[in-house]
Amino acid sequence: MTSPGQPAKQGPRSLDPHVRRYAARTAGMTASEIRALFAVASRPEVVSLAGGMPHLAALPLDGLAREVGEMMATDGLVALQYGSAHGLPELREQICDVMALEGINAHPDDVVVTVGSQMGLDMVTRIFVDPGDVVLAEGPSYVGALGSFAAYQAQVVHVAMDAHGLVPEALREALAAVERSGRRVKFLYTIPNFHNPAGVTLAVNRRAEVLEICRQAGVLVVEDNPYGLLGFDGQTYPALRSTDPDNVVYLGSFSKTFAPGLRVGWVLAPHAVREKLVLAAESATLCPPTLNQMIVSRYLSTHDWKGQIKIYREAYRERRDAAISALEQHMPEGCSWNRPDGGFYVWLTVPEGIDTKAMLPRAVTQRVAYASGTGFYADRLGSRQLRISYCYPTPERIREGIRRLANVLEDEAQLHATFGPTTSREVGGPQSPSPDTA
Amino acid sequence: MTSPGQPAKQGPRSLDPHVRRYAARTAGMTASEIRALFAVASRPEVVSLAGGMPHLAALPLDGLAREVGEMMATDGLVALQYGSAHGLPELREQICDVMALEGINAHPDDVVVTVGSQMGLDMVTRIFVDPGDVVLAEGPSYVGALGSFAAYQAQVVHVAMDAHGLVPEALREALAAVERSGRRVKFLYTIPNFHNPAGVTLAVNRRAEVLEICRQAGVLVVEDNPYGLLGFDGQTYPALRSTDPDNVVYLGSFSKTFAPGLRVGWVLAPHAVREKLVLAAESATLCPPTLNQMIVSRYLSTHDWKGQIKIYREAYRERRDAAISALEQHMPEGCSWNRPDGGFYVWLTVPEGIDTKAMLPRAVTQRVAYASGTGFYADRLGSRQLRISYCYPTPERIREGIRRLANVLEDEAQLHATFGPTTSREVGGPQSPSPDTA
Repeated sequence: MTSPGQPAKQGPRSLDPHVRRYAARTAGMTASEIRALFAVASRPEVVSLAGGMPHLAALPLDGLAREVGEMMATDGLVALQYGSAHGLPELREQICDVMALEGINAHPDDVVVTVGSQMGLDMVTRIFVDPGDVVLAEGPSYVGALGSFAAYQAQVVHVAMDAHGLVPEALREALAAVERSGRRVKFLYTIPNFHNPAGVTLAVNRRAEVLEICRQAGVLVVEDNPYGLLGFDGQTYPALRSTDPDNVVYLGSFSKTFAPGLRVGWVLAPHAVREKLVLAAESATLCPPTLNQMIVSRYLSTHDWKGQIKIYREAYRERRDAAISALEQHMPEGCSWNRPDGGFYVWLTVPEGIDTKAMLPRAVTQRVAYASGTGFYADRLGSRQLRISYCYPTPERIREGIRRLANVLEDEAQLHATFGPTTSREVGGPQSPSPDTA
Repeated sequence: MTSPGQPAKQGPRSLDPHVRRYAARTAGMTASEIRALFAVASRPEVVSLAGGMPHLAALPLDGLAREVGEMMATDGLVALQYGSAHGLPELREQICDVMALEGINAHPDDVVVTVGSQMGLDMVTRIFVDPGDVVLAEGPSYVGALGSFAAYQAQVVHVAMDAHGLVPEALREALAAVERSGRRVKFLYTIPNFHNPAGVTLAVNRRAEVLEICRQAGVLVVEDNPYGLLGFDGQTYPALRSTDPDNVVYLGSFSKTFAPGLRVGWVLAPHAVREKLVLAAESATLCPPTLNQMIVSRYLSTHDWKGQIKIYREAYRERRDAAISALEQHMPEGCSWNRPDGGFYVWLTVPEGIDTKAMLPRAVTQRVAYASGTGFYADRLGSRQLRISYCYPTPERIREGIRRLANVLEDEAQLHATFGPTTSREVGGPQSPSPDTA
């Protein structure tokens, strides 16, 4: 960690005259590698398996457009005015109905509406984390969470997952190790359902154990659940929050069940924490956009939003199937991956000696982009992994992208056989997210 | 300042089981007094002179509603999707045109779109301020800025203003005093035009001097300019940024010239700083709402937005006139106030012995609300001041509100004559804003 007053870490070519003025935390803010390639990776001929952009084509745009227009005409003076930092009461009630689908019994007062759940995550970190505090997070973890944790100078300690999600024994060990090191764990950050980027789900029979371990250790649980309603068989799992309301802060989002461009998410928190969150949110944005809250509220009250989620689920299942069958067909020996039951992501491990970050520019040259694994770790692991997002391209494009990726991996294996392992340059810390890797 | 690990400061009745978990910064987050009274103060029979809510009734809602509907129907898949943290390129170009009205020559690349300029302020503080760093700000200053500064544990040192805005000599003295104390000034935060809450404007002949003082001291200038286009005679002033692009970070907003409920603001920053801001913004909200940016962009390209600003100016001038004539007619002896040439606010000094914060609940009982002066200082000054916002109520209501306020002041003076000075309880730090005091 850079100490205050010391210049923030800069690349060798920095000509920034403000370099000595930045806060220590700013040294931890570095761009994700995919962003450096963004101009190339977003060309139409490139199949991007990098981004986490939802498949919005399924939305009933005409009906939505008509309703938004009507709402502006009748309630525009409210929609265009400041609101409260807490969020619109009607929307907070509806959010409680949404959460009830995963067994949560909440009071609307304890819901705080945020500018996407990213802001919720940022606010939770703001109120709990002092520089040097430890946050436990699955390894790998959501790149945007690592970005927020870095912005508050948290130290991230990763906890292992297996095919059934977070491993309770690994959680116990991580807690003990942090305690031995004299540091303090502020919370466990976990994505229990259809994990980003690992694609796995925390087994139901592990949930009580994870909660009990955290409660015993006096550690809060931050449950991030953007994908929970996107189980491909319509299955849902009991939210951690549903059984431990006093020790879980829950983050929700409409980005994956409705539309991310509205930036409407929420935090459900224990009552006392909620008060702090509202104050933190006021200092961050004054209030979430009123118009956007009203659009979501109206959508929930007038549309078959559960039907829409079913349409999304089916679109993603079709894409998951395309991805898995293409992986089975094309991937060279030595690769392994999971088969997700919901959500957006496949986590791919490549043969030893291949560095997915070093390989990325060559992949983009071969017209396929992905998110390399290192971005999902705070500790530089992940160089043999990459994340495939199947949420946005058509099934045909997914198949084509994975075919190209397989070719790149084969070329890379040949390179490796000829010249030895590829390596990538070191990065200065956890990488902040770009929306393309959300 | 509370040190890490120490419990955050709590009220005597706190039953918060998480009290030992909060970050040190959280101790600085306290609610503004007006919020405690909000339920009462927002009753229709109370004239609220507290809030900074713009007078939106002048907006062409029907046309806007039609266009937003059309835009959703044709470009909904973009409007509802993730965008970049930097903001839409077209909007950033248009923002440069807006800023040109105050002499700013900027490149769209150096503009970062934010969720209101509050987020811009929060991001600037995030990247520059370490705990204990000093931020200079006019005394009084915008309550939302003090909230952000507190969230990053900045120490605010106030610099005196007079009728011509920030006093250059006071700025020199403040810089010297901070240097003597061994602390470090990170930036000067200033609202040069139609100041919130003081209502004054930095004289044009002081601007170069203020810039030169900061440049000499190696201190960045953060120029917050939400009201600059709301001069009642259509007058504008050269932005500080227009003459010192390398040492000024400029904050702009559509909240006062168009509509705050969209939460669209921006930061114009030196190029290297802009890169850090984008990364900080990604960690905070991933991206600003795409829909809202498209609405503002379309509004700027299809509406007579300058004509709309003229309509706003005239509405606010009429309200300013109502406020000033009512003050002249009703205020008891010993009160003084300024006559603003633009913007939303009159800053009122009451007779000695009256504490505006202690008086507030009694004022609300008398059906008038205001923002007491202490909220606009980080150092507990301001107990003899209060802010009158004339932006939202009708001229008639403003006159009635000020008449009621004058009665409350007279009652208070009698109380004082009988029982001695009123006092208010101490507060723990600068108060975070509520939208009602934005």
